[in-house]
Amino acid sequence: MKDIKAKFLEFKLIGIGRTKNAFIKDGMDFYSGRINKFYRFNEDYLQVKHKSEDAKQIQKEEAIQLQKYLDAPGLNILLDEKGKTMDTIQFSNYLQNHMNQSHKAIKFFIGGAYGFDASIRQSVPLKIRLSDMTFSHQIIRLIFAEQLYRAITVMHGHPYHNV
Amino acid sequence: MKDIKAKFLEFKLIGIGRTKNAFIKDGMDFYSGRINKFYRFNEDYLQVKHKSEDAKQIQKEEAIQLQKYLDAPGLNILLDEKGKTMDTIQFSNYLQNHMNQSHKAIKFFIGGAYGFDASIRQSVPLKIRLSDMTFSHQIIRLIFAEQLYRAITVMHGHPYHNV
Repeated sequence: MKDIKAKFLEFKLIGIGRTKNAFIKDGMDFYSGRINKFYRFNEDYLQVKHKSEDAKQIQKEEAIQLQKYLDAPGLNILLDEKGKTMDTIQFSNYLQNHMNQSHKAIKFFIGGAYGFDASIRQSVPLKIRLSDMTFSHQIIRLIFAEQLYRAITVMHGHPYHNV
Repeated sequence: MKDIKAKFLEFKLIGIGRTKNAFIKDGMDFYSGRINKFYRFNEDYLQVKHKSEDAKQIQKEEAIQLQKYLDAPGLNILLDEKGKTMDTIQFSNYLQNHMNQSHKAIKFFIGGAYGFDASIRQSVPLKIRLSDMTFSHQIIRLIFAEQLYRAITVMHGHPYHNV
């Protein structure tokens, strides 16, 4: 395969909490290896020490930690149950359009176990919903990575997305 | 946890082709272990020798192999991109309604790399779409297993679905 890695562009995935299951870590390694043949792809999972067991309080504690990643250079997209639904071709086109705008990075965010704090939902306009169904914030990492890889293969005419 | 396994009911997942990636197999073991605490859950992945490389022909060859699983006792549900979309609570209620009808088994089918033959789509009325996005027929196994487990925990008031 031709090395079509565009050095200027980086995809980032930012989530909350260590990856718990080995199969998720192994699956992420599998897809990140594939994605890295096209673009840089980095994962950051934040360790947030919770002082409370209250869902809203946990969301707020996580929001404080997420803010510096939201403020970093690049475009922010939330993976959120309130987000826009799209099929793979639409997602691929959507990504391509944003990539064409010369962002230093495209950063995808996955909320914690209770989802995003309202302040983050309000401040980030771009939101994507991967499914109408709810999945654990752990397995969403894997679902997203497969879909990002698939969308990239669509852009580049790579046969993966046809089978 | 109380053993609430209902001996009469079994969930089955039927797909095409060996599970290729270790992380998918490991993830399926993880979720099937969880599901089995509530209900029997079996997976069957059919080995279909393809005589053709043509997508429509492959669908037909797979349809012939799938037919005996479709004809086995129980209710058939296709996991299909043309299916009905639902959220987790709706999926849980949908399952519960079908389970209340005393089916011997509820059988979920995942098509091969090219999806289902039109004959199967026509003959099976119940179809569910897990996402508007397309995923590989391998990782769909994992996405489905997590969602089946999640739907079962909703039915039983198990805390998994709350975090």
